[in-house]
Amino acid sequence: MSMERIKTSILYSLQEKPMNFWKLLAENQYLLGDFLKVLNELYEQGMITIKNNKLCLSEKAKKELNKKASKFSVKICDKCNGKIVLPGKKFEEILKIFKKISKQHPPILAEFYQGRIIPEDTLKRVALMHKYGDVVDKSIVLIGDDDLLSIALALTELPKRIVVFDIDERFEKFFNEINKKYKLNIEFVQYDVANPLPKTFLRKFDVFSCEPLETDSGFKAFFARGAACLKDYGSGYIGLTRLEVSMKRWAKFEKFFIDNGFVITDIIRDFSWYYDSERKEEREEYEQFVKMLKFDPGKNPKVCWYKASLLRIESLGKHKTAIPWNKKIKIIPVDEESFTHPSLNE
Amino acid sequence: MSMERIKTSILYSLQEKPMNFWKLLAENQYLLGDFLKVLNELYEQGMITIKNNKLCLSEKAKKELNKKASKFSVKICDKCNGKIVLPGKKFEEILKIFKKISKQHPPILAEFYQGRIIPEDTLKRVALMHKYGDVVDKSIVLIGDDDLLSIALALTELPKRIVVFDIDERFEKFFNEINKKYKLNIEFVQYDVANPLPKTFLRKFDVFSCEPLETDSGFKAFFARGAACLKDYGSGYIGLTRLEVSMKRWAKFEKFFIDNGFVITDIIRDFSWYYDSERKEEREEYEQFVKMLKFDPGKNPKVCWYKASLLRIESLGKHKTAIPWNKKIKIIPVDEESFTHPSLNE
Repeated sequence: MSMERIKTSILYSLQEKPMNFWKLLAENQYLLGDFLKVLNELYEQGMITIKNNKLCLSEKAKKELNKKASKFSVKICDKCNGKIVLPGKKFEEILKIFKKISKQHPPILAEFYQGRIIPEDTLKRVALMHKYGDVVDKSIVLIGDDDLLSIALALTELPKRIVVFDIDERFEKFFNEINKKYKLNIEFVQYDVANPLPKTFLRKFDVFSCEPLETDSGFKAFFARGAACLKDYGSGYIGLTRLEVSMKRWAKFEKFFIDNGFVITDIIRDFSWYYDSERKEEREEYEQFVKMLKFDPGKNPKVCWYKASLLRIESLGKHKTAIPWNKKIKIIPVDEESFTHPSLNE
Repeated sequence: MSMERIKTSILYSLQEKPMNFWKLLAENQYLLGDFLKVLNELYEQGMITIKNNKLCLSEKAKKELNKKASKFSVKICDKCNGKIVLPGKKFEEILKIFKKISKQHPPILAEFYQGRIIPEDTLKRVALMHKYGDVVDKSIVLIGDDDLLSIALALTELPKRIVVFDIDERFEKFFNEINKKYKLNIEFVQYDVANPLPKTFLRKFDVFSCEPLETDSGFKAFFARGAACLKDYGSGYIGLTRLEVSMKRWAKFEKFFIDNGFVITDIIRDFSWYYDSERKEEREEYEQFVKMLKFDPGKNPKVCWYKASLLRIESLGKHKTAIPWNKKIKIIPVDEESFTHPSLNE
């Protein structure tokens, strides 16, 4: 990715209208370190100024830009929010229950780099999976489930089996309670993807889904376990950000899918928006990177600025698992692109 | 792709509502040969019957399906048609002119496997490219331009330069006339991608776009010329169908992008809908495959059943061109997956 592309993207966003830092970030999902660097440069060069907490183009910047561009506005669809599908009425009913359950979710832990997708987007993910034939009578495994996708799936009563792997032992009690209260049948397994896969889950599922750790080793581990769980011709849904994974590493991950016998069928940009928590401590935990800015961005007025693209992959049959299912994997949880992690901003 | 997936997909489409063959095909974009095979089997097994020209589930099929599935309907967004973006008002103005120009398009030739995307979708492609920063002040090359994307781009007056390569010499006169009449500045070059790229175009463009021939050699040639035209960090938009390219070959093409130094940033399923021509001869030219059906599908009531997904790729810098720009390429225009081509249905 050239810095020029990021610069142009920022400037034309602001040509459309001045906006606060958080909104600008939400609309410009580039590698966060690069984004902050370019933004600082533009600020120091006097291309961007700040008025009433909003970033604006300076007169100098306005002159440099193509004036005709502003006439051609393009919005992300405000009906589906750029997510392609519209879930029907029955999904709306489930959403209400799902939102209620979501509130009982154990607080997120930076220790496991947890974060949560907004409930609406989790439901849209279920709808998309259903549209693509990956829900009805399917055995589905979630490799990590911060977002409680398992519960959204279970509430439809459509899948045959739902298994959740998560490293976080607090979930065991949580799922037990939810299962009981809502008559669901989600199987919870406390499991760290660094460890060998329990053999009983090998090649048993039609679908896996995950929001992997985004370091090379983290991504590889999540994918390897997902692939090991999958039957021939099964499919996988994987969330991947542009904020903490450079395009170079995206290509590496894509090659990884293909070299292991999968095809990428869909990449929907910015499909999943992460929750801006109502718990202040949780929110600010991942927003410490603002220290790197040369100006004060102001407090985040509840903008969801952290988004993940959704990739769907499909096994071509006899796929490989990258790492043998019965081998341990050494996982490095944070790397130099983990810009939102508190440890990178100490 | 397992046949089971196609079977389930067809049956659950019909569980939602009975529909004619063309609509079913439009909603189930699988390798056409496989789709027809599965559909014939379902018909012969008595799972599907035909009433008033519509395909319906038999009682036997209804019993086999999960009844709960029908409660959870998911539609493709009816505001953006699953295309993520909403072009603003100014695009609407252009669309009117563009539609008028489109009507003057020379008739399509099966000789070059020509087909045309509906004008609305071509405009949406421009909007998407604009949203992704690939239009304003950019040099853009179209490798083949059946769809007149060049004209839609030119009407915005935003790109710096637009060059069209096309094998079809009739376009020269056409573009000359349109340039004159609408004060555009599209450069037309009669060029067959099998031939070496004229050196003057080497690494001169920010963006390329194409709807390649979908045989292995055809795809490779279109991509190679696009990549050769592109500067470092440039981007490419490529249409690819699921109807005439198996998932196995999709994976091969994806590997091809990555091995040559690109990343795939977006795959939007069924982005481009092809025109069901008002010229009867043109329409039926590509619909001869219905001979393979064991039942009469009826005449196509103007359903756009041929769709292409849109892939966006981005050069990571110092990308390769797969085939040297100054070498000839042997292109096989039709292969065993070119199900809609007249020559395969003789």
